[in-house]
Amino acid sequence: MIGPEIDRLIQLLAKLPGLGPRSARRAALHLIKKRDSLMEPLAEAMAAAAAGIRTCSVCGNLDTGDPCHVCRDGERPGGRDRTTLCVVEEVGDLWALERTGAYRGLYHVLGGTLSALEGVGPDDLNVPKLLERASRPEVTEVILALNATVGGQTTAHYLADRLEGCEVRISRLAHGVPVGGELDYLDDGTLTAALRARRSL
Amino acid sequence: MIGPEIDRLIQLLAKLPGLGPRSARRAALHLIKKRDSLMEPLAEAMAAAAAGIRTCSVCGNLDTGDPCHVCRDGERPGGRDRTTLCVVEEVGDLWALERTGAYRGLYHVLGGTLSALEGVGPDDLNVPKLLERASRPEVTEVILALNATVGGQTTAHYLADRLEGCEVRISRLAHGVPVGGELDYLDDGTLTAALRARRSL
Ligand SMILES: [Zn+2]
Ligand SMILES: [Zn+2]
Repeated sequence: MIGPEIDRLIQLLAKLPGLGPRSARRAALHLIKKRDSLMEPLAEAMAAAAAGIRTCSVCGNLDTGDPCHVCRDGERPGGRDRTTLCVVEEVGDLWALERTGAYRGLYHVLGGTLSALEGVGPDDLNVPKLLERASRPEVTEVILALNATVGGQTTAHYLADRLEGCEVRISRLAHGVPVGGELDYLDDGTLTAALRARRSL
Repeated sequence: MIGPEIDRLIQLLAKLPGLGPRSARRAALHLIKKRDSLMEPLAEAMAAAAAGIRTCSVCGNLDTGDPCHVCRDGERPGGRDRTTLCVVEEVGDLWALERTGAYRGLYHVLGGTLSALEGVGPDDLNVPKLLERASRPEVTEVILALNATVGGQTTAHYLADRLEGCEVRISRLAHGVPVGGELDYLDDGTLTAALRARRSL
């Protein structure tokens, strides 16, 4: 006989990745005990995020505001380096690269990888916008920072072909990314090293 | 350069037990992707819980509404058994017992255990209210369902002494082999207790 409001809170918390039913109960109890210092601020942060987060119309990043913080900083004198675009599969990969602090350019979030099996083609992946951005005169390099998976590498090769017409250096992350590994699960040191040792394609 | 609103969401999620920084980021990304189906409902459930949850003035349970759902059901004809009080340390213990479906009586949540070291005395622990409730004519049994820890057992002995004046049976949970447990993995204390409390078949 747990009240319906608390029960609903537990059920919803259990849908978060990494929380099972037991840890969802512990999280709910923790939130209830830290009502003022945690539950209320978290409820407000979620409501604000739910209301404010947009897909950036420039790069595909998820952020409050459009363009996103990264793209807006690129517009600022002395801001992010607009000559380099780093192509990633998902926003989580962008976050992982940002955590390293090793990259100062702009991003392009594809939203996935090409997959004939799942019917995912270039137009489903924010590719036309990438080709348009890569053609801009200020852009000199496109880093294909895709996962070292079959899907990621297939997509990287496809993009390298399509980008050949643009006057840009095309590079990929250095080996050091474990084969079959996903960027979001890598430690910052490996990711930084892979970024610094990136190779021309 | 993760936007401040998303960064704040990640920081707050990382304060939940069971979520580290990495899983907090994954949770934030999951919430952002499931904005309508998860983030908004969870924000609302937390806001509702934060606004509505009270400490039950009868039993010390945390619930929306005072008295709590359990105590209110005890007031209802045919509702929960008002002759039995189950004393627990924390609300999480009450939840655990409720999940079993094996208990139909009322509860009394102490809010911790006695600790001379930490300066926690009976008045800090909802004890006076327990003595008052245990003295009511309808109450015939008090189950001391405290943890099998030094603090829990010290508190149980103290309460057993204090409750001697009341006309109630005082009981505690049985010690023994956990259901599905293997003898080889049990501590000696549990095994000794299980042996001493053995039952005829
Ligand atoms: Zn952007
Ligand atoms: Zn109550």
